[in-house]
Amino acid sequence: MPKHPLDPLSVDEVRKASQLLLQELSLPPMCIRFKVVDLAEPSKDEVLAHLQRGNRVPDRKARIYYHQKNSKVLTKSILNVSSGILETTEELPDVQGPVDWVEYNLVTKACNKHPAVLAEIAKLKVPPSARILNDPWAYGTDDPFERRRLFQCYMYLALNDDEEANHYSTPLPLAPIFDAHTMELVDLQRLPLGVGDELDTETQPWTPVEPVEYSANILGTEALRKDLKPLHIIQPEGPSFQIDDRTVLWQKWQFQLGWSLREGPVLHDVRYGERSLFYRVSMSEMTVPYGDPRTPYHRKQAFDLGDSGFGLTSNSLALGCDCLGHIAYFDGVRVSATGDPVLMPNVVCMHEVDDGIGWKHTNFRNGKSSVVRDRKLVIQCTSTVANYEYILAFVLDQAANLHIEVRATGILSTMPIRPDLSVSPWGTVVAPGVLAVNHQHLFCVRIDPILDGERNNTVVRDDCLPVRGNPNLDPFGCAFRVKTTPITKPGGYDLDLSSGRTYRITNPSRVNEISGKPAGYKLHAAPSQMLMMGPETFNHRRGTFASKPIWVTRYRDDELWAAGEFTNQSREDTGLATYATRDENVENEDVVLWHCFGLTHVTRPEDFPVMPAEKLSCTLKPTSFFRKNPSNDVPRSEQRHNKSTLHTAADGSFPYCQAAGR
Amino acid sequence: MPKHPLDPLSVDEVRKASQLLLQELSLPPMCIRFKVVDLAEPSKDEVLAHLQRGNRVPDRKARIYYHQKNSKVLTKSILNVSSGILETTEELPDVQGPVDWVEYNLVTKACNKHPAVLAEIAKLKVPPSARILNDPWAYGTDDPFERRRLFQCYMYLALNDDEEANHYSTPLPLAPIFDAHTMELVDLQRLPLGVGDELDTETQPWTPVEPVEYSANILGTEALRKDLKPLHIIQPEGPSFQIDDRTVLWQKWQFQLGWSLREGPVLHDVRYGERSLFYRVSMSEMTVPYGDPRTPYHRKQAFDLGDSGFGLTSNSLALGCDCLGHIAYFDGVRVSATGDPVLMPNVVCMHEVDDGIGWKHTNFRNGKSSVVRDRKLVIQCTSTVANYEYILAFVLDQAANLHIEVRATGILSTMPIRPDLSVSPWGTVVAPGVLAVNHQHLFCVRIDPILDGERNNTVVRDDCLPVRGNPNLDPFGCAFRVKTTPITKPGGYDLDLSSGRTYRITNPSRVNEISGKPAGYKLHAAPSQMLMMGPETFNHRRGTFASKPIWVTRYRDDELWAAGEFTNQSREDTGLATYATRDENVENEDVVLWHCFGLTHVTRPEDFPVMPAEKLSCTLKPTSFFRKNPSNDVPRSEQRHNKSTLHTAADGSFPYCQAAGR
Repeated sequence: MPKHPLDPLSVDEVRKASQLLLQELSLPPMCIRFKVVDLAEPSKDEVLAHLQRGNRVPDRKARIYYHQKNSKVLTKSILNVSSGILETTEELPDVQGPVDWVEYNLVTKACNKHPAVLAEIAKLKVPPSARILNDPWAYGTDDPFERRRLFQCYMYLALNDDEEANHYSTPLPLAPIFDAHTMELVDLQRLPLGVGDELDTETQPWTPVEPVEYSANILGTEALRKDLKPLHIIQPEGPSFQIDDRTVLWQKWQFQLGWSLREGPVLHDVRYGERSLFYRVSMSEMTVPYGDPRTPYHRKQAFDLGDSGFGLTSNSLALGCDCLGHIAYFDGVRVSATGDPVLMPNVVCMHEVDDGIGWKHTNFRNGKSSVVRDRKLVIQCTSTVANYEYILAFVLDQAANLHIEVRATGILSTMPIRPDLSVSPWGTVVAPGVLAVNHQHLFCVRIDPILDGERNNTVVRDDCLPVRGNPNLDPFGCAFRVKTTPITKPGGYDLDLSSGRTYRITNPSRVNEISGKPAGYKLHAAPSQMLMMGPETFNHRRGTFASKPIWVTRYRDDELWAAGEFTNQSREDTGLATYATRDENVENEDVVLWHCFGLTHVTRPEDFPVMPAEKLSCTLKPTSFFRKNPSNDVPRSEQRHNKSTLHTAADGSFPYCQAAGR
Repeated sequence: MPKHPLDPLSVDEVRKASQLLLQELSLPPMCIRFKVVDLAEPSKDEVLAHLQRGNRVPDRKARIYYHQKNSKVLTKSILNVSSGILETTEELPDVQGPVDWVEYNLVTKACNKHPAVLAEIAKLKVPPSARILNDPWAYGTDDPFERRRLFQCYMYLALNDDEEANHYSTPLPLAPIFDAHTMELVDLQRLPLGVGDELDTETQPWTPVEPVEYSANILGTEALRKDLKPLHIIQPEGPSFQIDDRTVLWQKWQFQLGWSLREGPVLHDVRYGERSLFYRVSMSEMTVPYGDPRTPYHRKQAFDLGDSGFGLTSNSLALGCDCLGHIAYFDGVRVSATGDPVLMPNVVCMHEVDDGIGWKHTNFRNGKSSVVRDRKLVIQCTSTVANYEYILAFVLDQAANLHIEVRATGILSTMPIRPDLSVSPWGTVVAPGVLAVNHQHLFCVRIDPILDGERNNTVVRDDCLPVRGNPNLDPFGCAFRVKTTPITKPGGYDLDLSSGRTYRITNPSRVNEISGKPAGYKLHAAPSQMLMMGPETFNHRRGTFASKPIWVTRYRDDELWAAGEFTNQSREDTGLATYATRDENVENEDVVLWHCFGLTHVTRPEDFPVMPAEKLSCTLKPTSFFRKNPSNDVPRSEQRHNKSTLHTAADGSFPYCQAAGR
C-alpha cells in the first residue's frame, strides 16, 4: 500500500487494476489491448482533508485507456483499486489515445514488409548490406474529418551493423502512411528532394553519402579526445537527502515524488521548512511544430507528452552516465498490452550538485569573507521520443528556489534532400543529403500553488514603470515604481520585457511582517518566441496553449493537460484553450499558473549527429514569503569540508603567476 | 618579460612604469599620487602582425592615471615600458578618474572625525558600544557644472564587534558629502525617513532595532543547518587544462588570460581547435541606477567598472570557498599611491565543472545509449564594490560554446526608514528600519570577433517569421522562414521576442561546406528590461549604452568602454553613445558586437542580509562554423571513469522503490 495518496500506482496496483477491469467487464484477458494504466489522482478536496485534517486515506484509483479487441474506439475507465469498483467507462470515438509500444512495433513491422513499400525501396538500389528502418510518427492533422488512426512512417537506411548506427543521417525519400487498427497501407507518400514541393517523376536510385556517425564503436577510440581527465563527485558522509518511500527530505524541502506515464516525474505536496508551497508542479505538455509547408511535413507537430508520454518513453538511467556523484534512482511501471505490470527501472534519478557560489560577501574593510555554496538537488529523467531526447529536471536549492529545467538533445528529425543542394528555405543542410527543418519546441509547466497550505491564492502581474513627467515628485527622472495588477479572470497573458513584467503567486491572507507585502512566489519566466502559426492553423488550434507564455486558470480536478487529455491527431486544444475561457473569478481563489516557454530551433550542422543540449529553465522564487534569506543558515564554505586541491606546476610553483612576478 | 603582448603588466613592469614616469616628469616620488597603472594594449594591427605573421613583439606600454600633488586635475600618460619613452601625457580637467583606495580611506577618515558629522551623530544617541562606519559612494551627477571631486558618505552603525557585523542593517539618516581633494565637508545631507522627501525637522534619536546578521560567529553554530553533507570534487589524474604562463589550453580551446584593474579577467586570442574565434572578450561596463527620486538618492548610479574596477575590487580567492575541486589561481597587480606594485594574489580562479548531460541519444530499438557529460572550464573572479558582490565568469564548454555569466550577490544598498513603516513606493522594507530601493543592474559585454583569423566579419540579424497569407506555398499556414539582415551601420539594436530575433557574427568569406552558410557565431542573448530612465535624464545620458541590448560598432583601438573611459561623475556616455553614432560601414569590416543585459531588482526580504546570487548569462554558439557537433569526439560517459555511487538504504535495498513493488 503506497504511503501517500499521490504516489504512482505500484506494480501490484497496476496488476490489480487490469485484472479488476477484465473482471468487471466480464472479458477474458486477450479481449482487451491495454494502453495506459496510470494513477487517477484523488480530488484535491480529499487529499487535503487527509493531509491537513487527518481524514480517511483517499481511495486508490486507476485511469485506464484501452481498446476492446476489434474495436477502433478508445475506451477510458476509472477503476477504484481500493474498493474494486469500476467507477466510469467511456467510449471515446472522437479522439485517438496516445501511442503505445505494441502498435508502434506492429506498424513498424507492417511497413517494413509491405510489398508496395518493398517495391519502392527496391528502386532506391541501396547497398544490399544496408538495413531499412522506420520511425512511425504521430500523423498530425490536416483534415478535420479524419477519424482513422494513422501513422506516417519516416524511413531510413542504416549503413552499419553497429547498434548505434545513425540512420537519421541517411533518410529515404518515402513515407508510407499506415492505419494502426487495420495495419493497412493508406498511402505510400514520397518525399520532395528539392527546395519546393515537387517530387521526382519516379523514385530514383539512392545517391550514396557518408553517414555522420556518433557511435563510439564506429568512430573508433582514436577519433575521441584523449585529454579529458576524470572528475569524480564524492560524498564521503553520504548524501544530504533522506528518502522515505517516495517522500524526499532535503535541506528543509519536503516533497512527494510522483510519476506518471504521461508526465514523468511530478512534485506533489512541496514544502519548505514545513510551510506548504505547491500542491503540484509538473511538466504538462510540449509541442513541436515544424516550419516546412511541403507535404507531408505540414503535419509534423508532435505533442510529446500527450502523444507518447515523458514517463512511457523514459530511459532506464545508468550509474555514471546520466548523473555524477551519489545517485538515488526511482522506478516506474507501465502496463503490457495484456494488462501485466512492466517495471521500468531507474526512470528517475536524484542527486546533489554544487552549482558554484550561492551567496558571498566580503567586508572590504578587513577582507573577511562569508561564502555559501549553491548546493542543489536535481530530480531528473530522460525521455527518448524516437530521434529526440528531452531531459527534464526539477532542481531545488537552499534559498528556497525551485528551478524547472529542460535540456533538448538527441537527433534532429531529418528529411532527405538532394546531396548537391545545400540551401533550403525551411531549414539547414546538416550533413550531405540531410535537411533538418527549423521547428519550435514549446513546453508548458503547470504550477498549482498552495502557499502556506491555503488554497486561496492570487496571481498578480508586476510591471516596473518609470514615473516620467512628474517634476515635483521626480525632478531628475530616475524614479520607477512597481505597478501590481491582480489577475482576476482566467486567460492567457503576455510577458513584456519593456516593463520587466513578472508574475507572482500570492497568498493575500498572509502578509509578510517585514515587508508588509503578501507572502508570494515569483515566476522567473523564460522569455521565448511563442507559437508562430496563426490562429486559423491546425498547429494553433491543437496547441493554443503554446501561443501565450502565461496562463492563469481556476483549479479543477483532472485539468492537468495544457493541450487537453488527448492530443494524438487532435483537432483542438481541449486544455488551456478550454480551461482559460470560462468567465469566473481567479482572484483569491484556488488558482493554477501555467508557463509556456521554448525555443525556435534554427538548425545548425553543429546540431548533428547528436545535438549539444540546449538548456532552458524557469524558476519559482520566494518573495516576501520569508523574513530573510532562507539560505542565511547554510554552513559557510570552508576548505576543511570542501577539500579542494591547488593547481601547481610539477615543481610546486605557480608558473602562471610568473607574469605577475610572484 | 611576459610571453604574450596582451598579458597584463607584471609586478616589474608596474614598478618600471611608475619609476620611468617620475623620471620623465623629473619629479620626486612623493609628488605624484598614482591611481591606475594598467596595460595600454598594443594596436590590433601590431598584435596580429606579430601573432599571425611573426612580426616583432609589440612594445609593452602602460596606461597611467595619476594626480600631481596639490593638483585637482587628473593626468593620463601612456608610457612605453619597453623603450622607456613617455609617449603621451594629457591633463584632463573635465573628467574624474576612478576611485582609488587611498582617497577612499582618506574620505572615510575625514568624515568619521569631522566635528559637524560627530555633532549630528551625537543627536542619534546610539549605544556607546556601537561603531560608526561609512561607505563613501561615487557622487553621481545632477549638475552639469559640478567640477569638484565629491563623495557621498552613507553612514551606518555596527552594533557588534564581530568583523562581519552587518552595518547595512542599521543605516543612519545622514549622508555627508566630502570633497576628495580638499577633504572638506561640502554638505551634511540628512536622509528622509518617511515615504516622501521630507526630513524630520531635527535629527531624532535612533530607534533601536535588531540588526539582521550573516556572520556565522554572531549567529552561532547552533543557528546553522546541521544536515548538509560534504561534497568533494576530485580529479585523481589532475585537471584537463594546461597553463603555460597565461596561455590556457583546455579541450581544444586556447586563450590568453588577460586581466585589467578595470575589467578583471579578459579573454584574448580565443581559439578552438586552432581556429581563431575572438580577438577579445570582456565585461566592459555595468551601471546600477536606483529608482528612488528623493535627494540624495536620485544621484545613485554606480558604474562599477569605470568608477572602481572589477579588477581593483577583486577578492583574493580562497581554496574551498570560491571554487570546488582542482583550482588554478592567477594573480593581479595594482599600484600604490607612491608607484609601488602591489601584488593581488589569487584574483582569478580557474577550474573544471561537470554541468550534467552534454548530449545524449538512446536508440529506442535496443536501448543502447550514448551520453556525453557537459564538462566546462570556469574562469572566475569576485568583485566587492562596497556592499555588493559581482561574480564574473567566462565559461567554456566542449561544444565550442562560450558562456559569459554574472552572479549578483552581496548586500543590498540600504537606506534608513522609520521602523514603524513597512511600505515605500521606491523599494521594499527588508528588515526593521531598512529600505532597499529597487534598482537595475545593467551589464555590457564586449565581443571582438576574428572568425578564422580574419578581421572582416559581419553581424547579421536573424528573424524567424511566419510565411502567412501564401496559400499556394503554405496551404496549412505552418511555414516560417529565417529573414537575415546584415547590420551595415553602427548603432544600437533591439531584440524582438516575437520574431525570436538573434544576432550572429559571420565571416562572409568562409562558407560552411555542409550548410552553405557563412561560418558564424550566434549570440544567445539574455533578454532584459533595459535602462528605464528617459533620454533627457543624467542616468540615460551617462549610461546610454544600457538603453539598447545590442550594439554594433566598427573596431578602433582603445574603444573598450561601453560608457566611455571616465565614468565617475560623468555627464555623458562617451563610449557606445559615441562609437555607435559614426556614419561608417560595419558590413564585412572589423566589427565589434556589444550585448547589454541585466536585471531590474525589485528587492525582497529574502535578499537580506546577503542576497542569494541572481545569475545571468549569455552565450556565443557556433553556427555553421563547424561541420558537425564539435563535442562528437568527447569520450562517452562511463561508470568506470565517473565512479558514481548508488544510493541504497542501510540494508542495501532501494526503499524508495517499494511503491513500485520492486
